[in-house]
Amino acid sequence: MTPAEFQQRRRRLVAEFPRRKLHALLLTHPPNVRYLSGFTGSNGALLVDPAGAILFTDPRYRLQAAQESACPVRVARGWLLAAALKVARRRKLRRIGFEAAHFTCQAFEALKESLYLAASLEPASGLVEALRMVKSPPEVALIRRSVLATSEAFQRAMAQARPGMRERELAAELEYQMRLLGADQPAFETIVTSGVRTALPHARSSDRPVARNRLLLIDMGASLEGYSSDMTRMAFFGRPGKPLRQLYRAVLEAQLAALAAVRPGVSAAHVDRQARRVLRAHNLDKAFAHSTGHGLGLEIHEPPRLGRGDKTRLLPGMVFTVEPGAYLEGFGGVRIEDTVVVTPTGCEVLTPTPKELLLL
Amino acid sequence: MTPAEFQQRRRRLVAEFPRRKLHALLLTHPPNVRYLSGFTGSNGALLVDPAGAILFTDPRYRLQAAQESACPVRVARGWLLAAALKVARRRKLRRIGFEAAHFTCQAFEALKESLYLAASLEPASGLVEALRMVKSPPEVALIRRSVLATSEAFQRAMAQARPGMRERELAAELEYQMRLLGADQPAFETIVTSGVRTALPHARSSDRPVARNRLLLIDMGASLEGYSSDMTRMAFFGRPGKPLRQLYRAVLEAQLAALAAVRPGVSAAHVDRQARRVLRAHNLDKAFAHSTGHGLGLEIHEPPRLGRGDKTRLLPGMVFTVEPGAYLEGFGGVRIEDTVVVTPTGCEVLTPTPKELLLL
Repeated sequence: MTPAEFQQRRRRLVAEFPRRKLHALLLTHPPNVRYLSGFTGSNGALLVDPAGAILFTDPRYRLQAAQESACPVRVARGWLLAAALKVARRRKLRRIGFEAAHFTCQAFEALKESLYLAASLEPASGLVEALRMVKSPPEVALIRRSVLATSEAFQRAMAQARPGMRERELAAELEYQMRLLGADQPAFETIVTSGVRTALPHARSSDRPVARNRLLLIDMGASLEGYSSDMTRMAFFGRPGKPLRQLYRAVLEAQLAALAAVRPGVSAAHVDRQARRVLRAHNLDKAFAHSTGHGLGLEIHEPPRLGRGDKTRLLPGMVFTVEPGAYLEGFGGVRIEDTVVVTPTGCEVLTPTPKELLLL
Repeated sequence: MTPAEFQQRRRRLVAEFPRRKLHALLLTHPPNVRYLSGFTGSNGALLVDPAGAILFTDPRYRLQAAQESACPVRVARGWLLAAALKVARRRKLRRIGFEAAHFTCQAFEALKESLYLAASLEPASGLVEALRMVKSPPEVALIRRSVLATSEAFQRAMAQARPGMRERELAAELEYQMRLLGADQPAFETIVTSGVRTALPHARSSDRPVARNRLLLIDMGASLEGYSSDMTRMAFFGRPGKPLRQLYRAVLEAQLAALAAVRPGVSAAHVDRQARRVLRAHNLDKAFAHSTGHGLGLEIHEPPRLGRGDKTRLLPGMVFTVEPGAYLEGFGGVRIEDTVVVTPTGCEVLTPTPKELLLL
């Protein structure tokens, strides 16, 4: 990202201030701070007002902030928000927005106590998240790299998968390959589950061996230069029986229906409904216990949510997962997940990995 | 952990209620929920009152919660805290504590709106964290396993380290080995930095190659069955010059002084002061830009903080890092870090890795 890109983001944010009756915005949520300043450290506060933005951090990050930040940096000892309020006071800022969805009650109370006369704290959530929903071309390029690292790591690791290998070993191999391919870290704890445990959508990889004639679920993603990817694929050592083949086909049909529904102008909930409609036709709607997808970018879960009740209208540049699943207790579960970007006419599936059931 | 251990923890927590004038406590911070119930999912709410605790989670975690939770489980659609309040109302609970240090302003406002007559929400932070500070023998055993996985992974990976290898490759190898040795994930993004970048205490591993006659900093830790470990070691390909040897010796002396100060009854700040005193004698106090250590357990950073102003009195069973460092811009930085447990008479260094500068 160039300094100009960060400046443009901040300008877009400041353009929202009049509508929200804000003179400034105080941010601490690390992905939001990073989005607006470039600073990747864990402890930063950003004060944005029309006169310019200032990044506050602690002495551990003095050099790193100087190298990364596209805004002026103040290194503060003690509580960063107190330092930020001092600058706000000097600038005579009055209506100061804060991230109500991220500030804790404790931080808010302390902030109120440090507040100067004539100033007020205004809950202002989701402003940066709304900007972040639509990705710029350099952001899509980073997500694409993150997706490709994930898919390539999957291919390399699965080439080494053998019955008898522990779930945890396979997860280790997948993460190792992602790291070598440029990931800073897994975007989340890689899930490798097998057999009936695939019916637990978010189970942990265990020391159980991967066995013949058992279903294998792999849910993995990379964080690469801060940007996430997310993919789920299913594999099987042997020849799957008919019930599994049917379950797989139903979920795949639901995923394809959801993908086909993605285009600018439709709601996030509309895409979710298409997946549910297909699963209902297969009598599997009750087995689908989560939403169809979630936005991703600097966070692995960010808006929009492809679920009931999310009325967000899709726009070109939005990036999210499409991942319906069906989970049958005592039998197993199937989920098929891609990362996609909305295009002017529909969607591009970024994930290149084939989505047939992988037979090993 | 046995169900009895979880019950004992909840009993200890409930014993604090009268002093805080609470009838119940509402928790959502995942490590606290896990500590009291055993549930490891990312979305849980726990209502604890003297009549018993109930865990609330969403349908994705239905099976997992049933398997893991030591308390009764309610699967709720929609907002978990609303479901918890309904039960609180039925139980006629009035003064309901909430985690002010973890609840967001947004969650708190929504909670207030759902509140029933005669009930009040009382800020109550740090109750569970205070219990968590002192680890039980089974917890220390898990941390010990986590520490040993880290040290063993360090040994295996460093045996393969060669000049020309990229920082990122070495980080990948370290994390891979931790995974194979039982870690669920790295406790944090493994730091491998070299040369002048070691002066950035929290830099990211890059694609720079590890070169001869350059300092190498490795900061790594595992999360194993939820429990963290944390270790920093320094290595060097070649023969280090005198300035580096002096810097290294000063930091090591500071670390040993801090370790020697750990015993029940002294304050966390006292341990920090011993490290600072040594570094000041070497004219390096300004180069030490962070605190001497932090508690760890279900989180990689938890109380106490071995820093200025933390008056926590050390007790047997507390587990934390001891990690002074000195960072010189344009030259490099040195940090030496162990995970230790307070014993009845002093401390046990859990980390078995030798702490001489590792010459490769």
